[in-house]
Amino acid sequence: MVEKTITLTGISANSIEDAVQLAVTRASVTITGIHSARVTNVEAEIENKRVVRWKVTVKCTFRVTESLHE
Amino acid sequence: MVEKTITLTGISANSIEDAVQLAVTRASVTITGIHSARVTNVEAEIENKRVVRWKVTVKCTFRVTESLHE
Amino acid sequence: MVEKTITLTGISANSIEDAVQLAVTRASVTITGIHSARVTNVEAEIENKRVVRWKVTVKCTFRVTESLHE
Amino acid sequence: MVEKTITLTGISANSIEDAVQLAVTRASVTITGIHSARVTNVEAEIENKRVVRWKVTVKCTFRVTESLHE
Amino acid sequence: MVEKTITLTGISANSIEDAVQLAVTRASVTITGIHSARVTNVEAEIENKRVVRWKVTVKCTFRVTESLHE
Amino acid sequence: MVEKTITLTGISANSIEDAVQLAVTRASVTITGIHSARVTNVEAEIENKRVVRWKVTVKCTFRVTESLHE
Amino acid sequence: MVEKTITLTGISANSIEDAVQLAVTRASVTITGIHSARVTNVEAEIENKRVVRWKVTVKCTFRVTESLHE
Amino acid sequence: MVEKTITLTGISANSIEDAVQLAVTRASVTITGIHSARVTNVEAEIENKRVVRWKVTVKCTFRVTESLHE
Amino acid sequence: MVEKTITLTGISANSIEDAVQLAVTRASVTITGIHSARVTNVEAEIENKRVVRWKVTVKCTFRVTESLHE
Amino acid sequence: MVEKTITLTGISANSIEDAVQLAVTRASVTITGIHSARVTNVEAEIENKRVVRWKVTVKCTFRVTESLHE
Amino acid sequence: MVEKTITLTGISANSIEDAVQLAVTRASVTITGIHSARVTNVEAEIENKRVVRWKVTVKCTFRVTESLHE
Amino acid sequence: MVEKTITLTGISANSIEDAVQLAVTRASVTITGIHSARVTNVEAEIENKRVVRWKVTVKCTFRVTESLHE
Repeated sequence: MVEKTITLTGISANSIEDAVQLAVTRASVTITGIHSARVTNVEAEIENKRVVRWKVTVKCTFRVTESLHE
Repeated sequence: MVEKTITLTGISANSIEDAVQLAVTRASVTITGIHSARVTNVEAEIENKRVVRWKVTVKCTFRVTESLHE
Repeated sequence: MVEKTITLTGISANSIEDAVQLAVTRASVTITGIHSARVTNVEAEIENKRVVRWKVTVKCTFRVTESLHE
Repeated sequence: MVEKTITLTGISANSIEDAVQLAVTRASVTITGIHSARVTNVEAEIENKRVVRWKVTVKCTFRVTESLHE
Repeated sequence: MVEKTITLTGISANSIEDAVQLAVTRASVTITGIHSARVTNVEAEIENKRVVRWKVTVKCTFRVTESLHE
Repeated sequence: MVEKTITLTGISANSIEDAVQLAVTRASVTITGIHSARVTNVEAEIENKRVVRWKVTVKCTFRVTESLHE
Repeated sequence: MVEKTITLTGISANSIEDAVQLAVTRASVTITGIHSARVTNVEAEIENKRVVRWKVTVKCTFRVTESLHE
Repeated sequence: MVEKTITLTGISANSIEDAVQLAVTRASVTITGIHSARVTNVEAEIENKRVVRWKVTVKCTFRVTESLHE
Repeated sequence: MVEKTITLTGISANSIEDAVQLAVTRASVTITGIHSARVTNVEAEIENKRVVRWKVTVKCTFRVTESLHE
Repeated sequence: MVEKTITLTGISANSIEDAVQLAVTRASVTITGIHSARVTNVEAEIENKRVVRWKVTVKCTFRVTESLHE
Repeated sequence: MVEKTITLTGISANSIEDAVQLAVTRASVTITGIHSARVTNVEAEIENKRVVRWKVTVKCTFRVTESLHE
Repeated sequence: MVEKTITLTGISANSIEDAVQLAVTRASVTITGIHSARVTNVEAEIENKRVVRWKVTVKCTFRVTESLHE
């Protein structure tokens, strides 16, 4: 049994949690079976003194079932 | 004066903040005087493309008042 | 072109996101052009078993336009 | 749901894997439900030019079910 | 000349070394020319007080020869 | 043979060394056989421009002889 | 909006900067829209007392626009 | 409420503790309300086989009350 | 004797070395006596498959002679 | 009493443990009294999809008894 | 101009500062021109609830003037 | 087969690459077979607002063929 981990950054105007969900949703269009996402960086983009976007980097892990593209 | 730090992971379906509170609440049943909790890891469990649980590891610190069990 | 990064800790009773915004708002009173804030530490202050304050340390970055005070 | 993580060092003359098992076995006498052990340090004790003991530090995690002793 | 590094986790009931080989074997079905694998995490899954699986994360590196899929 | 490591913070008005000794002394009331203490953090509390307390975090290690309380 | 980060190592006989450009050029054959490359490791290969190749590892980040291959 | 953290290095011929106090004293001439100083580096300068100066880097934290100069 | 360390990012189209010099030059307009700059991050900005800017973060250290602005 | 620590990499076709022993054996030809070896890196060399060599970096520590060659 | 850095551990019953000086003194018997020693680890050995020895690891740096023995 | 890694700092007025080559050249006078040098620190010395020297620390690795001097 082998798992693969990839690094994605979800970007959301709402919250840290929302940014994580966004990254997972996008990855799940083509990847089956992501089971965990570990947060490794949280960054806020600021415009006119306001946080306008949360950029949250996550390491997503999923079981390798079919061919592994590289 | 001596403090002790222990490592707990709170698991919540709602948010990162809620998971921290959960860990603190549970620990406070038997430990008196926890005064701080530092977040050291944030992980999301994914099922069917959705974050279903936030697993947040915290280092909880409290003053050692009575006997220290080990 | 040169940027400067400073370390601030926002303290909020509400949420991690709110604490980041607080730090950015306070810094923006005297600093123009903060464009990003990277979270480097998240700590919860506990009183009577409840999280009462989120202390979130951020590294705020802004372009150096005028004189750099030290 | 809350988990606790403790730090143990298993010491074995045989192998790194054996030292991990030893730490888990010893902890399981009094702790129920350890589900994972992450290796954080591996050290070999040397006597007369030979490795005589493997000292392997693991962070053992288990669900908190009953009272949490501190 | 360019190399790529991907992160895989091999899972084996036998040993740490076996888990590394498993990850490499699986990756080699679709990737040609992996030349090194650096261990970055070792975790044991425990059931009934026994280590039942070694989960070993490796960073596998290979030369990029054909098209790079992303 | 199994060892356990716990995290304590000794707080002393005198010196870094004194804070370490304080943590060890306090822990030794209930724990037998602490053999080492590794310093992992040193913090000074300041009041009116003076260091009034040294807070030194140590990881204390001892052999597990009897039951392991958690 | 989601970004992906991959790890590449550019290898050049000339300079550290050249090795970074090489990695980016090679990746750009099949990936559209790489916008940043963070250097995470710099290694020199030595032959007969001379640096003959700079091996520079970079984490390249790009916006995920189409399908994400894994 | 917002705090700021700055990085100073105190240099003393006497001891590590003294170097920390020196950094705090100097900073307190113009900054009001420093409440903590975390040691992040300790270096000894050697001349003729003797330690002649302790260079101790501390991160000093204080509440931001008035304008924040940058 | 006390030193202060600040974090700057120099941005240059030419090279890593040039970006460091740029940060130092800009800081030296208002700060006297910077004596060292330690590189802590190197990032390349990419446009149309080419590195167009090197963003190099440095920690600049200087002796505190007059008043310390915060 | 003074100890010295050196960094060696043992390379073995058999196992991680064997690679550590190899490094210690080789060092012990000319160094007396190595008492510990801490593993700091584990890397596998791959040829034709198989791990052919384990390269294990260890920090070996020994008491300095006679002259220290540099 | 080239410098070399070696890792030593000074062991003293008195203080952290004393342990650093001990390592430097011992190294200076055979090495000329050590100019700095950076503390990288501080450990206390405990016997009967008392700190009996401070083991302080330092990285000593000196200019390479004559032949470099390896 | 055993390799040794030593830590050197090359100091050059020209560039980071040049400083690495300098360290390797100097070490190669007495050490045979250095095959790699990993950069672990880059520091610039500043005089009168200009970078006058690049101090680049490298970990040089070579195969141990003859006696290992300590």
